[in-house]
Parts: sequence; C-alpha cells; structure tokens
Amino acid sequence: MQLFYEPNITGDQFLLNEDEARHCIKVLRKKADDLINIIDGQGNFYVCEIKEAHSKKCLLAIKEKSPEEKRAYNIHLAIAPTKNIDRIEWLVEKAVEIGIDELSFVICQNSERQQLKLDRVEKKAISAMKQSLKASLPKINPITKFSDFLKADLTGQKFIGYVDSTNPLHLKEAASKNDRYHVLIGPEGDFSNTELLEAEKAGFKKISLGKSRLRTETAGLVACHILNLIND
Amino acid sequence: MQLFYEPNITGDQFLLNEDEARHCIKVLRKKADDLINIIDGQGNFYVCEIKEAHSKKCLLAIKEKSPEEKRAYNIHLAIAPTKNIDRIEWLVEKAVEIGIDELSFVICQNSERQQLKLDRVEKKAISAMKQSLKASLPKINPITKFSDFLKADLTGQKFIGYVDSTNPLHLKEAASKNDRYHVLIGPEGDFSNTELLEAEKAGFKKISLGKSRLRTETAGLVACHILNLIND
Repeated sequence: MQLFYEPNITGDQFLLNEDEARHCIKVLRKKADDLINIIDGQGNFYVCEIKEAHSKKCLLAIKEKSPEEKRAYNIHLAIAPTKNIDRIEWLVEKAVEIGIDELSFVICQNSERQQLKLDRVEKKAISAMKQSLKASLPKINPITKFSDFLKADLTGQKFIGYVDSTNPLHLKEAASKNDRYHVLIGPEGDFSNTELLEAEKAGFKKISLGKSRLRTETAGLVACHILNLIND
Repeated sequence: MQLFYEPNITGDQFLLNEDEARHCIKVLRKKADDLINIIDGQGNFYVCEIKEAHSKKCLLAIKEKSPEEKRAYNIHLAIAPTKNIDRIEWLVEKAVEIGIDELSFVICQNSERQQLKLDRVEKKAISAMKQSLKASLPKINPITKFSDFLKADLTGQKFIGYVDSTNPLHLKEAASKNDRYHVLIGPEGDFSNTELLEAEKAGFKKISLGKSRLRTETAGLVACHILNLIND
C-alpha cells in the first residue's frame, strides 16, 4: 500500500504538500477521482479522493478517516548522536519501524558529534513511517546538552544504559508494562562518571541491555525493541 | 581494546596475516616485544608477543589463550538477501554485535536478488566481531535455493516468519530456552504460498515478530534479538 504524508489536514478538503503531490501526480500518474491513502503523522489514516490532479496543487477530499490503534505505552529514546551520521539515520529508520514515540539527541561530555541536521532525521522518520504503514511520526526534539536534558520534567520509568560490576539489572526485568519510558544511551566513549551520578540523582536507573558490547546506535535500537517486546 | 583476527593459528608461534600485520605494524606502529590481542574466530582469545615486527611477516608468540564463554544456545538465521545490498551488510554487522552463530542466504520465489558477494558479507562479520570484542565468527553458508535449504538436516527448533490470520504466535512465546534455532525470513515480496507449505512440511513453525510491519533485514535482526533475549 502506498501512503502519502500530509501533516496539515483541516476541513473536509485540503491541498497535498508539493513534494507528495508531485510524487502522486507526476510519478504515479494518479488522476482525478482516484482514491489515495494519506497519513497525518498524528495517528490518523485517511482515504481521500483526488478532486484536482495537479502536481503543484493537488486538491483532496476526505472520504474516510480512521485512527491508528493506540498503544498503552510510550517510548522516549534519548541518545548521543554518533560520530558517523549514517548510523543515527539508520537507528531512526529502524526505531520507527519497530515502534518509538519520542526521540531526543543529547550531547554528552564524550560526544564527538555536537550537531545534527534534524531535517534529515525527520525525513528518515517520515519515510520509515510510510514504509511500515504507521500513521504516527515520533516527536523529534531539538538537540540538547546532557545537563539540560536532565532538567526536563519526565514522568514515567527512567533508565540509563550503563553496565558496571554493581549493575547486572537487565532492562527487560527493570521495566514494567504499560508505562512511559525514557531511556538514555551514551556516546561511543560512554557517559562520564559525573553524568552517571547526575542521571541517577535525576531518577534514572542503570540498566544492562545484555551481555554483548553494543555500538551506540545498536544499544538504542535494542532498548527500543525490548520495551516494545515486553508490551507486545 | 584492539583485537586482531587470525583464523589460522597452529603451534606456539605463528605469522599474522598480511592485512592485520600491516595494520598492526604500519598503522599502529607496534614494536617487537609489544603484547597484542588476537582472536581466531573459533571462540579463542590470545595474548601474543610480537617476535618479529615486519608489516608483511609479523611473527607472534602465544603468551595466553582463553576461550570465550560458551552460550547454551545456537542461532541460525536463514534470510532472503535484500535487493539493496547495504541492508544485508547492515544486518550482518548488527546480528554479529547482538549474537548469531550461523547465517544462510536463501533465494526465494519472490527474491529480487539472486546473488550475493559472500566475501563482503564475511568482511562485515569480521569487523563487527572485532568491534564487539567477540572471538567467534558466525558460519556463513553459500547461497542456496529455498527448496535446497529445506532439504538440509536441521536439528532444533525451526521457525518461519509469516503472519496470517491463523497465526498469532509470537516468536518470544514459540521458542523455548537453550536450544538450536533456525529462523527463516522471507524477501521483500514475502514467501509464496507454496514455499510456506513446503516449510511447514519440513517442520518449520509460523511465527510473528510483533505487530509492526518490518523490512526483511529488520525482521532478521529482531528475530535474532528475541532469541538472544529469551536466553540471556
């Protein structure tokens, strides 16, 4: 099934944005009266009829609207962007496929990367949402410093990926079902001791993700998958 | 920790292969008497002393040998290669990080890709093994046709990723601990009905990997992670 993404839907008729309109009319050669499937990224599927089939001005009329099945839990991944940008983009694609609600990028003491083009990240997320037939786009937060991130008022279960000799607790045991989860995953050089202590003070519990040593982006995905699995 | 890979270790002294020797001596500038860490891909870690520090002929003497911790289970993933080769290479990297013992590439009726350069796949696996500090390289089998794959004598629990209305069984419930697992994951166009029936005849049980619609390579990784999780 081909889905088109239009985040601004108001009223019974609306214009499809130009990127999607061009793809719909020029590439896929849809005509007036054809029915197409739209998602709004806010949890709704639409069946729409093409009223005007222009590649710049594609007018659609809503025929049906149906909400996506709501999940009883919410996954927020906060991760240090990797040095190699492809790895973060890959993570975003896979996390959206598997299921994620919110993404934060956090700059840590050992972060090699301090900046991130969020529009590229969002594009990856949109394309993965369409490809996996979902209707909800995860919230992607502006990049923040670690200490600022900890100041946010986060309700729910809070975890930080960090394994040491005093910490054998696996996320699959630490997390309980049907809740809001916030998981912090550190950079290639890991969290500093200061960061770890600050996070613990802010209510983050240290968790392990298994016996294997994982790259940053793999750890992020694995955390996301574990939380989906215990709820699925 | 930096690991070097040498699959052919016999006796107390041995020559490091030229690729690794060049990296060790030319790039990292290791000298005679330096200690370096070697893995053989067969489950062993070695500490070796450099006897002769030449970038083509790097002679090493074994100082210590220690086996990797053995896992009580064995994961064999059999997957249709994706059209885009990067996606398979990505899967190999991530599966090795998370833990996998054997990989087969299976050509299905709906496969768009019929060939695969196994040396590239092996290189990815070696690099992921070194990066994640493991000592075992998964067995990578030659590419086979689906029907030939089913003829192999596979002992253990056999699963095929396929969801239909009669099949709500999740892999996390279907698989039991401490066993050998074989998981079949289909191509972008999924398995054909004939293939599905043949697989069921050969003892493969249909399983779901969760509610989300996953790409081939994501399904492969998710299956691998679930089997690690229920055993971890």
